[in-house]
Amino acid sequence: MSVSLRKARTIIRKTLEKGREMDLKPLSVVVLDAGGHVIAFEREDGAAPGRFAIAHGKAYGSVMLGMAGTAQMQRAEAQAYFMAAVNGVYGGQVVPVPGGVLLRDRKGAVIGAVGVTGDTSDNDAAAAMAGIEAAGLTGET
Amino acid sequence: MSVSLRKARTIIRKTLEKGREMDLKPLSVVVLDAGGHVIAFEREDGAAPGRFAIAHGKAYGSVMLGMAGTAQMQRAEAQAYFMAAVNGVYGGQVVPVPGGVLLRDRKGAVIGAVGVTGDTSDNDAAAAMAGIEAAGLTGET
Amino acid sequence: MSVSLRKARTIIRKTLEKGREMDLKPLSVVVLDAGGHVIAFEREDGAAPGRFAIAHGKAYGSVMLGMAGTAQMQRAEAQAYFMAAVNGVYGGQVVPVPGGVLLRDRKGAVIGAVGVTGDTSDNDAAAAMAGIEAAGLTGET
Amino acid sequence: MSVSLRKARTIIRKTLEKGREMDLKPLSVVVLDAGGHVIAFEREDGAAPGRFAIAHGKAYGSVMLGMAGTAQMQRAEAQAYFMAAVNGVYGGQVVPVPGGVLLRDRKGAVIGAVGVTGDTSDNDAAAAMAGIEAAGLTGET
Repeated sequence: MSVSLRKARTIIRKTLEKGREMDLKPLSVVVLDAGGHVIAFEREDGAAPGRFAIAHGKAYGSVMLGMAGTAQMQRAEAQAYFMAAVNGVYGGQVVPVPGGVLLRDRKGAVIGAVGVTGDTSDNDAAAAMAGIEAAGLTGET
Repeated sequence: MSVSLRKARTIIRKTLEKGREMDLKPLSVVVLDAGGHVIAFEREDGAAPGRFAIAHGKAYGSVMLGMAGTAQMQRAEAQAYFMAAVNGVYGGQVVPVPGGVLLRDRKGAVIGAVGVTGDTSDNDAAAAMAGIEAAGLTGET
Repeated sequence: MSVSLRKARTIIRKTLEKGREMDLKPLSVVVLDAGGHVIAFEREDGAAPGRFAIAHGKAYGSVMLGMAGTAQMQRAEAQAYFMAAVNGVYGGQVVPVPGGVLLRDRKGAVIGAVGVTGDTSDNDAAAAMAGIEAAGLTGET
Repeated sequence: MSVSLRKARTIIRKTLEKGREMDLKPLSVVVLDAGGHVIAFEREDGAAPGRFAIAHGKAYGSVMLGMAGTAQMQRAEAQAYFMAAVNGVYGGQVVPVPGGVLLRDRKGAVIGAVGVTGDTSDNDAAAAMAGIEAAGLTGET
């Protein structure tokens, strides 16, 4: 099972809707496939210009490590030099905080990831989960 | 005048519709703002995983140089080492072929760019123009 | 609203004048547009040769994140690995300390940033604010 | 002898004035010191956002190689792979075309370089020479 563009669009739209409902700052949302490659992205009006890279970094690290943002953050807090080194081997493209959410199929296999940025990391993750659930997928924050 | 997310969505949807109408291979479409930063991106099912970077490279070079894909290609053909050097200063992020389309406002100022990849460069550019026109904007291929 | 070269010159001159008035070390001042691209830069005689990159890094991070130097520093102090990771995704171009000052228009939209370096971070920021105010713009340190 | 900020300002202003007089497209002008480090830069309103990197690349290669833009271009045309390799060792920061102008003192020593971009390479170089002469310095295109 892979994430279709249709599903990715639903995730993004519903994540943004949740952000408006929660009254969050303007959000940016990326959906990556199982190889860590971009399927779709949207940045809301008013978000800072550099938000693609942050959203991407949250999702990319999640896919590449098979570890969602919360687990990455715990590892970074316990062993900062390890996550720094991991980032070295991934070309500095990993942002290890909540808002990077793994997408899993029914058997638990990783089929992609969502990255959300714009508000607090926890709010970013909550909005992502709303989007993922609206698309009928299972997320791991 | 800047390109809103709403306009960017229209450009992408209409570019993809045009691609289906022309029976093109699966397309990927990015819309950048006037600073070369990603507003929105979509990759159709069946497109190769690395298409984000190609679409981005077509649009990014257009914005950074203020020169659309066709003009970049002509320069690359006339003076290959120059475009190679330009790419060096932009971190290798420039893909100098058609499919990179400048967005201009009514006074002619560059307000962003669209990058399309997936089929031939000329077909990519044609689909982009259809999307741009459907959004009520002016494109330069 | 965008920052014209004329405004950028005024910001730089008045920042440098303030530096002389405060008896600061030689300063370097950059003004970036809303996309993080350089409009103007000056380095005073006697400043270290590498000051462009520091001034640029202070302003660039401010624009890309939509967060001025003081807020970046607080985040770096609270969660060092996060700012390190953010810097990774921006190619190591972010210097998260005061002296990176956001420029906002009357509605609060970010229209660029100023980066000052040479003295203490706080003095750098104070000089920047003097330059920004002399240009009739609103700064956020 | 080194290039003061005062001299750099004169070079930039007079280069821009020459550009207006010649009716050139909006120009961007950088002045580097003898170590290849930025002293001052200005980008005219209407120039593409990425012009700093091009202007810098023209001047940087000139200083680093001790060879002005015209000579670099001749070498690139005669031996493209050599200039490509040179660019590799300088981190891709060299743009080997006219508009990169060496600054020499009375004894012929290189004291810096000017980089101009925006119009044709030859017009860029002509405007640079006007600025350099107005500052009482000797340029080599």
